[in-house]
Amino acid sequence: MLISAVVYRDGHRVADIEPSEIHRYVAQPEYLVWVALRDPDPATLEHMQAQFDLHPLAVEDARNGHQRPKIEDYGDSLFAVLQVIEPQESELRVGEVAVFAGRNYVLTVRSHSERGFQEVRARCEREPELLRIGAGYVLYALIDAVVDRYFPLLDLLETELESVEERLFSESSPRVNIEALYTLKNRLMVMRHAVAPLLESISNLAGARVPPLCAPLREYFRDIYDHLQRLNQTIESIRDSVGTATSVNLSMITLQESETMKRLAAYAALIAVPTLIAGIYGMNFQFMPELGWKYGYAVTLGVMGIIDLYLFYRLRKGKWL
Amino acid sequence: MLISAVVYRDGHRVADIEPSEIHRYVAQPEYLVWVALRDPDPATLEHMQAQFDLHPLAVEDARNGHQRPKIEDYGDSLFAVLQVIEPQESELRVGEVAVFAGRNYVLTVRSHSERGFQEVRARCEREPELLRIGAGYVLYALIDAVVDRYFPLLDLLETELESVEERLFSESSPRVNIEALYTLKNRLMVMRHAVAPLLESISNLAGARVPPLCAPLREYFRDIYDHLQRLNQTIESIRDSVGTATSVNLSMITLQESETMKRLAAYAALIAVPTLIAGIYGMNFQFMPELGWKYGYAVTLGVMGIIDLYLFYRLRKGKWL
Amino acid sequence: MLISAVVYRDGHRVADIEPSEIHRYVAQPEYLVWVALRDPDPATLEHMQAQFDLHPLAVEDARNGHQRPKIEDYGDSLFAVLQVIEPQESELRVGEVAVFAGRNYVLTVRSHSERGFQEVRARCEREPELLRIGAGYVLYALIDAVVDRYFPLLDLLETELESVEERLFSESSPRVNIEALYTLKNRLMVMRHAVAPLLESISNLAGARVPPLCAPLREYFRDIYDHLQRLNQTIESIRDSVGTATSVNLSMITLQESETMKRLAAYAALIAVPTLIAGIYGMNFQFMPELGWKYGYAVTLGVMGIIDLYLFYRLRKGKWL
Amino acid sequence: MLISAVVYRDGHRVADIEPSEIHRYVAQPEYLVWVALRDPDPATLEHMQAQFDLHPLAVEDARNGHQRPKIEDYGDSLFAVLQVIEPQESELRVGEVAVFAGRNYVLTVRSHSERGFQEVRARCEREPELLRIGAGYVLYALIDAVVDRYFPLLDLLETELESVEERLFSESSPRVNIEALYTLKNRLMVMRHAVAPLLESISNLAGARVPPLCAPLREYFRDIYDHLQRLNQTIESIRDSVGTATSVNLSMITLQESETMKRLAAYAALIAVPTLIAGIYGMNFQFMPELGWKYGYAVTLGVMGIIDLYLFYRLRKGKWL
Amino acid sequence: MLISAVVYRDGHRVADIEPSEIHRYVAQPEYLVWVALRDPDPATLEHMQAQFDLHPLAVEDARNGHQRPKIEDYGDSLFAVLQVIEPQESELRVGEVAVFAGRNYVLTVRSHSERGFQEVRARCEREPELLRIGAGYVLYALIDAVVDRYFPLLDLLETELESVEERLFSESSPRVNIEALYTLKNRLMVMRHAVAPLLESISNLAGARVPPLCAPLREYFRDIYDHLQRLNQTIESIRDSVGTATSVNLSMITLQESETMKRLAAYAALIAVPTLIAGIYGMNFQFMPELGWKYGYAVTLGVMGIIDLYLFYRLRKGKWL
Repeated sequence: MLISAVVYRDGHRVADIEPSEIHRYVAQPEYLVWVALRDPDPATLEHMQAQFDLHPLAVEDARNGHQRPKIEDYGDSLFAVLQVIEPQESELRVGEVAVFAGRNYVLTVRSHSERGFQEVRARCEREPELLRIGAGYVLYALIDAVVDRYFPLLDLLETELESVEERLFSESSPRVNIEALYTLKNRLMVMRHAVAPLLESISNLAGARVPPLCAPLREYFRDIYDHLQRLNQTIESIRDSVGTATSVNLSMITLQESETMKRLAAYAALIAVPTLIAGIYGMNFQFMPELGWKYGYAVTLGVMGIIDLYLFYRLRKGKWL
Repeated sequence: MLISAVVYRDGHRVADIEPSEIHRYVAQPEYLVWVALRDPDPATLEHMQAQFDLHPLAVEDARNGHQRPKIEDYGDSLFAVLQVIEPQESELRVGEVAVFAGRNYVLTVRSHSERGFQEVRARCEREPELLRIGAGYVLYALIDAVVDRYFPLLDLLETELESVEERLFSESSPRVNIEALYTLKNRLMVMRHAVAPLLESISNLAGARVPPLCAPLREYFRDIYDHLQRLNQTIESIRDSVGTATSVNLSMITLQESETMKRLAAYAALIAVPTLIAGIYGMNFQFMPELGWKYGYAVTLGVMGIIDLYLFYRLRKGKWL
Repeated sequence: MLISAVVYRDGHRVADIEPSEIHRYVAQPEYLVWVALRDPDPATLEHMQAQFDLHPLAVEDARNGHQRPKIEDYGDSLFAVLQVIEPQESELRVGEVAVFAGRNYVLTVRSHSERGFQEVRARCEREPELLRIGAGYVLYALIDAVVDRYFPLLDLLETELESVEERLFSESSPRVNIEALYTLKNRLMVMRHAVAPLLESISNLAGARVPPLCAPLREYFRDIYDHLQRLNQTIESIRDSVGTATSVNLSMITLQESETMKRLAAYAALIAVPTLIAGIYGMNFQFMPELGWKYGYAVTLGVMGIIDLYLFYRLRKGKWL
Repeated sequence: MLISAVVYRDGHRVADIEPSEIHRYVAQPEYLVWVALRDPDPATLEHMQAQFDLHPLAVEDARNGHQRPKIEDYGDSLFAVLQVIEPQESELRVGEVAVFAGRNYVLTVRSHSERGFQEVRARCEREPELLRIGAGYVLYALIDAVVDRYFPLLDLLETELESVEERLFSESSPRVNIEALYTLKNRLMVMRHAVAPLLESISNLAGARVPPLCAPLREYFRDIYDHLQRLNQTIESIRDSVGTATSVNLSMITLQESETMKRLAAYAALIAVPTLIAGIYGMNFQFMPELGWKYGYAVTLGVMGIIDLYLFYRLRKGKWL
Repeated sequence: MLISAVVYRDGHRVADIEPSEIHRYVAQPEYLVWVALRDPDPATLEHMQAQFDLHPLAVEDARNGHQRPKIEDYGDSLFAVLQVIEPQESELRVGEVAVFAGRNYVLTVRSHSERGFQEVRARCEREPELLRIGAGYVLYALIDAVVDRYFPLLDLLETELESVEERLFSESSPRVNIEALYTLKNRLMVMRHAVAPLLESISNLAGARVPPLCAPLREYFRDIYDHLQRLNQTIESIRDSVGTATSVNLSMITLQESETMKRLAAYAALIAVPTLIAGIYGMNFQFMPELGWKYGYAVTLGVMGIIDLYLFYRLRKGKWL
């Protein structure tokens, strides 16, 4: 589905064009052609390949989807794949944006994703002095937007971690914690698979040997690189905490088991001792003087009670109860 | 066993030839000779070594089998070993394909593997403009086919992991889970030993210093490299999940043990308390007024019942039962 | 909030100036302008950007805060972000200092931090022969001060670890230990996120390709690098010990559980055996000669006592009690 | 102890010589002197040092033994230390071979090892066209022989692992498994200390900057490198499996503990319930109508039996028994 | 405290000199000045700084102590910090030796360490042909001596590990093992912090770009590097074994717990079954024929005994007892 196809000149919007006109404008270096597609059918993609003269391997990647994030250098053009992640109920849905950026054109192909990039276009059009730099700047603005959307998602995961941490040392919910930690870890992995490969790719746009398209924007890409490093560090940090929390949780389970066992044993003692006494006075010896005493029964019950009270006191003091 | 020996010119099939004619065609640079063997005996291999003038160390590797995947540069020729993995009942069977690729010849030696590479030959013959590039392209097409066959295998392992994950938090089957996770891990290792060394070797064909044979195909090998990285990432991701699932499973076992113990203790209490009461009224004191009461027995039974009902209510509320 | 804006010449303080005069002095290379801000509002930052002609991306980082520590090279100027950590009750509060250092100016922006850097200015003014080197030296002095403040914090964490280690093998407090180790680990992570990225950045100022601003100070930055490596090593070492202590603690819990169980079983035996004897003499057989014996009851009680004493002796010897 | 001292020319054996003649032949570049020692006394080593003009640090290493495997470049000569591992009862005994290889000589010093390298000499003498290459080829042949002997040892360890894996999910032998896994891991470490450092050293003989002695043999050393990588991968793979098997074993122990506890509790219930009933009819109430019934006793025993049968059925169904 | 200040010429001792004469001799390149201090007060250090013209940052490091081991290049001089470790009761005490080595002087500063380096001076004076090389050789000899002293300490730790390993599978002492492993790990960390950073620094003196002071000694420093690698490998190996032993110990504890539980349950069964029988014959039914039998009591006791014997036999066979 074509979202928009716009031609710019000197950073200013010139006209909305038809798909079939693209190659005419691309052929004129003074124009910048910026086309956005969403979940395109193969025919549309093929048409675009012809209009922009795109590399077949790159187009195949865009068609197949499910790529790792990457930025590939095809000599005079760049091909970037980014993952866009959107929370959907308790899952994280992973979509993709493929960006073909040439000397004077940008083609974006968005798949499996709700939220568009109109805001990026709007921002670029508000800053014609930057848009004038060309396709490299549009590429920067798109990557920047994708990366900025990762932050609130990670905040969400951090909040979840904190809520597990609060429960961790209370006695209630080890089972809930295990499940929460497991799903947290899985979602973290989703984030990591979006961030880590991109970090690696971006470093090439911010480092020593930058493709000409991005040369004037080195500091901007370094800024994205820096954001990605922060994301990466946060992911590693949550991951580490999840690992520790998992093992703490196991310790807590074992500890609670141990404490439960002590409690049980204490109660067992409170029952077993009077049972023994009752057993003794249930013996059928002929000569058991206590049996004939008038208050023998009452005294025995009293002794049972006193022993249990004493045991209870001792056990509570020893923290068994 | 010889499968086929075909000569191409300008990307088009010229003729099927006899093994003994090979060296004649190899001597003429305008031809491309593509020979396929399957589980060859030493004599055949020796014959091929003479026909193609292959390096003895490479031929020895092809004969011995059980190599790590690798791509070795012998100056004017390349020697590649790839692992082909085929599911066989619940196991993964590992076979090998050795590829000798020279300036104008390709020799493939397939061992311990059912499925052939006829489809690769067919694809190459359908695209003469690519096959014209020569032996490098055939090498690419073969590696590409091998790598593409890894994907459905990994999908299988992912499905298995998911089925373990579904069972993980249900109380039923910790023992089944342990076994499933252990065999899953072992199969993952098989996949990893096929993918990881190849990833390393391929990077040399996609990087800065490419052997001349593959120079015009750098972007194609980068594409394979990219696929291998995706495979590798998926393997690492499953591996990580298997590790976490294993420790979650241990936590679940410990937790269930703890809950079982509580349940047992609760039932024990339901029996121990009336046993104590019965013991008390089994004492032989002469003066135990209750013993003479008409409804003493009934009341005692009633008291036992009421205490147990109350205990039951308390224990259930405290989630012991 | 402006803390101070001072102009130096040849290492000596010349005058306190107004913010609006800054650009006049910055334009004269014989002066060094050193301005310190604290939690500035956006307007102030914008004003500074104009006065010093700062790069917009660096200013944005200073405004947003929550950056990773880093030292960025903007050609003729450096932009450093450092984390300042202050203990606050049982937490570690993380603030930031952003430093813009150009050929003849230094601008520091401190946020979320109580303690200032007056001492650094005082030290610099006491050593005019070093301050004369210029902005690079001020940058060094600031980083050095920040890094030196990390040492007492780590000492604190080491002390905490030692107090956990002392408790580790005593039987009292596994639960307290788990919590202490978990919070210790979290605080360690805070320290690590301040130290590790800085270590990486500083290595560029101490290595082979140093920015001209810092060229004459290579040995000074190497000294900071050395301090950071010591900090890093200590952090890794504590981290490692925390990990080991956590697993030792789990072993101790399991071990105590095991020992508790033995003790319980021993007490259970001391009760169960006389209960069995009492049960036997509670049987209603007509011909049980012992029942008629005069001292049958006393002897039975005695036998019970002797058996329990013997059991007690055996169990204590076997370390069950 | 001198094993042999032989002079070769153009790849053919010329003569067995006396130790004191060595320096005469070494001085003539057209000869190749190959001397083999076994557990030499210091005097012999000193004599050899003088005859071959060896570097004192290398001789000291050969005398002291217990070195890491390494290949050191002393300008015009190479000094290699290799570990030879021989199974001895259930242990692995580690011996050493030190090889001094100069322009036209090879001196091997074997220590703490039963098996010699006569087969290597025989192989070299059978292939004069390769032996003609000189000392570098002898060095290759020796290292190749040492490395080839590692394979059957690793196969042994793999077999042991498999036998543990077979027992792992059977209920019998967790204790045996722990011990087996521990000793397996220790032996694996022995293998690893022989393989990993050698891998690193060999890469220098197969890589870009090869010492002149080995220059014509680059592909041969790459072959050894390849073997070492396979060994290394197998070691890592076993190591990984040992780790997983250890934690699986712990899970199995915990699981069996849990199942044992359930079984115990089930049996306890089968005894406790009839005990309670017996207690009830042991009470001394005057009005307990059942006591007077003719079949009261039989009915009670029957009820006990029926309850236990029912319990047994329920417990078995719930997999407690 | 000054230990000695000696001047050498051509490798031979010329004279003991006064501290105040140092600068006179240092100014003459034909002399080598070697001064040794122990726990010097700040005034002495300051005096030395003036005499030798030392870099202030290096002197500050020597004064403060508690440095990581390192070797720093100050252009025409080297500054090395080494850790000397001495066993003290069950602890390892860490001291320091700082070495300033210039073109024709060596200054050593030893702190918190009992054992001196007189033996190094003696060795150097015995080998004037090596001492003639100059300050670089003295530096080598000192580092060599420090590194050689690490070996017996590691042997000690290996012995401790072996004694734990012997106890590991015996049932006696899990608690002792945990503590032993924990302290072993801590001591290992002390060793590692001495060895690992030095390894890194020494590699610069043995590698491609060696400071001129050490250039003629490259092979000697490579020898130290080799020793450090062996130490490092041993440390890693013990560390690995400690980790495995810790988890084996936890498995053993869990296993023993499980076996203890089985034993307890077996004994419980031996008591519970006769208790049930006694309970049955303690019932007060009027018609219980066995009660009237003459040998009823004896038979019942006999039955109890037989049942227990049978149970005992079965339980022992099933390895519960």
